Amino acid sequence: MKSRRKFLIHLGTGLIPVTFGFTPDSLLFKTDNPPKDKKLRVALMGLGSYANRVADAMKDSKYAKVSGVISGTPSKIADWKKRFDIPDKNCYNYGNFDAIKDNDEIDAVYIITPNALHHGQCLRVAAAGKHVICEKPMAINAKEGQEMVEACDKAGVELLIGYRMRFEANTLEIVKMREAGEFGEIKFFQGLSGFKIGDPNQWRLDPKLAGGGAMMDIGIYAINGTRYMVGEEPIWVTAQEVKTDPIKFKEGVDETITFQLGFESGVVASCLSTYSMNYLDKFFLNGTKGFAELKPATGYGPIRSETHKGRLDLPHITHQTKQMDEMAKIILEGKKPTIPVDGKDGLKDLKIIDAIYQSVKQGSKVMLDL
Amino acid sequence: MKSRRKFLIHLGTGLIPVTFGFTPDSLLFKTDNPPKDKKLRVALMGLGSYANRVADAMKDSKYAKVSGVISGTPSKIADWKKRFDIPDKNCYNYGNFDAIKDNDEIDAVYIITPNALHHGQCLRVAAAGKHVICEKPMAINAKEGQEMVEACDKAGVELLIGYRMRFEANTLEIVKMREAGEFGEIKFFQGLSGFKIGDPNQWRLDPKLAGGGAMMDIGIYAINGTRYMVGEEPIWVTAQEVKTDPIKFKEGVDETITFQLGFESGVVASCLSTYSMNYLDKFFLNGTKGFAELKPATGYGPIRSETHKGRLDLPHITHQTKQMDEMAKIILEGKKPTIPVDGKDGLKDLKIIDAIYQSVKQGSKVMLDL
Repeated sequence: MKSRRKFLIHLGTGLIPVTFGFTPDSLLFKTDNPPKDKKLRVALMGLGSYANRVADAMKDSKYAKVSGVISGTPSKIADWKKRFDIPDKNCYNYGNFDAIKDNDEIDAVYIITPNALHHGQCLRVAAAGKHVICEKPMAINAKEGQEMVEACDKAGVELLIGYRMRFEANTLEIVKMREAGEFGEIKFFQGLSGFKIGDPNQWRLDPKLAGGGAMMDIGIYAINGTRYMVGEEPIWVTAQEVKTDPIKFKEGVDETITFQLGFESGVVASCLSTYSMNYLDKFFLNGTKGFAELKPATGYGPIRSETHKGRLDLPHITHQTKQMDEMAKIILEGKKPTIPVDGKDGLKDLKIIDAIYQSVKQGSKVMLDL
Repeated sequence: MKSRRKFLIHLGTGLIPVTFGFTPDSLLFKTDNPPKDKKLRVALMGLGSYANRVADAMKDSKYAKVSGVISGTPSKIADWKKRFDIPDKNCYNYGNFDAIKDNDEIDAVYIITPNALHHGQCLRVAAAGKHVICEKPMAINAKEGQEMVEACDKAGVELLIGYRMRFEANTLEIVKMREAGEFGEIKFFQGLSGFKIGDPNQWRLDPKLAGGGAMMDIGIYAINGTRYMVGEEPIWVTAQEVKTDPIKFKEGVDETITFQLGFESGVVASCLSTYSMNYLDKFFLNGTKGFAELKPATGYGPIRSETHKGRLDLPHITHQTKQMDEMAKIILEGKKPTIPVDGKDGLKDLKIIDAIYQSVKQGSKVMLDL
């Protein structure tokens, strides 16, 4: 099911509009005022702590609601059914969720499972003809990511990645200021992303489920942030790995990696990804005329921001509420977000992660082709 | 002339004290209360803007005073003679300053000339039997630095490098906190040092006089800062260069370099050196129990500082006044500074700079042996 979105995007690039069975009135559809009776009906896959956070935030969403669940744990399903008033017919497990194809009460599936499972699950959701929202990282390498993009494209469903910061007010204001030239020529970006990870037995420290270490989970914020803050795609990467606890951080699970991204324009980014320290979460964008700092930059908020003109500190809206509102508008109305959150964009982060791991391995610069 | 300092340092390391012609009373000499009639008498070599700043600051020094000048510009000498009440006999030019050997009104020469001149000038001052204070970088490569250390050692004179931050109150308090374990195990340091350089015709952009680019002049703050903030010597370095203006920044003059320093303990430092942007000058030290941030970190002050316990922001004392007071105590009384500022220490920064340039050239990690 090709959505209205494709049509509107083509309009935006100046192509001649063609009506596909809906009236011209629909072209005047205001994205801020969708029909009140239509919400994006989302089934959450994987009922861990982040899924709980998303579902709670969706209670305040005007455009999306929890309509189904997919879980391997019957007791969790029972709990969620009560909390979100979900009928039996909208509850699935990992064995039978392909049947969601025939469920007309579910529009999209939000995959919130361990990283290494995203690829296979996304392919099954796409095959069932439902839109896919997938937590970051969308997969554990670019090859998987590419297959997901192709599968969703082929099935005619959206693939959106859970980059909640791309809808955050301070972040968007800074991007807007950059586009208006308020920082002059951009020269430098710094992203310090990390935290001290606790429980050594969690899936994030299991290379088979996590597909990597801190880079997959938290370093990706610095990668992603570099791209949307700089507003240009990097052309090379260098990276250095340090491991102080090889028991906790097994082979294939990176603890701390510093990495640098270079750009055609001469911008350079210097980033940190780590599972072994707190007091981080800082973005710093520097140009010839001014700077912007986000600190914290990507936590659950409030995000705090400062520029050469003074503090911004725009009002906090629960990120997951805002994300689901915006993703519903993208899927239901073809709204084009300020910063893309689609699979093709998420794939670029995976290409950079692949290159970071390769640079660590070979000890030299790796060129990027995004 | 071997100074009293060597003797006291030996005492400090537990060697048996031997009196070299002075009475045991002198061992009780309090470094905070030197004889009021004895000040370190300093001749300034190179009367540019920084020399003016140093000389003005020395007006408030209790332990050092401007007693002579060495300059190639007669009009500058005339001006300084008036301003600092300097007799004719204490004024030299670059041709005749070796005669300072016979001047018993000069104890030390402070070299504040272009980087590439330091080496030759230091060797001549040492040969004249005067203590040497030399601006950073002490020389333009480690080979030169090593020769300077050896020359001063042979001549029995002190060689101190103008690292004014090593006497700054906020910096020293953070070092003290680190030594007391207040940040836990140190994990990460970040030093962002740079500014947008102006006049394209200044000596700092002439490779023959500067011996390099931003790294020599401002990047060295991040290098030096990494070492005193982390409190450990790095064992490897990686570096990446970016040049956006090859007209202004000629061959041999680095514009922007990102570099990383690794430590035996697993600490990693991520630094920036640049001549093409402002809004920098930030140090960030991160450990398992807390952090420290200096912002600005190395400007002329006031330095502003924050830790996980709150803001420090200790009172500002003009850095150059404090530096000259402390250096006078080191030379006259053998005081041991909290952080070393001697030539052997300065030489380590040059070894790191050599390795940074090498890493840029070869595109891979360079091991350090400090």
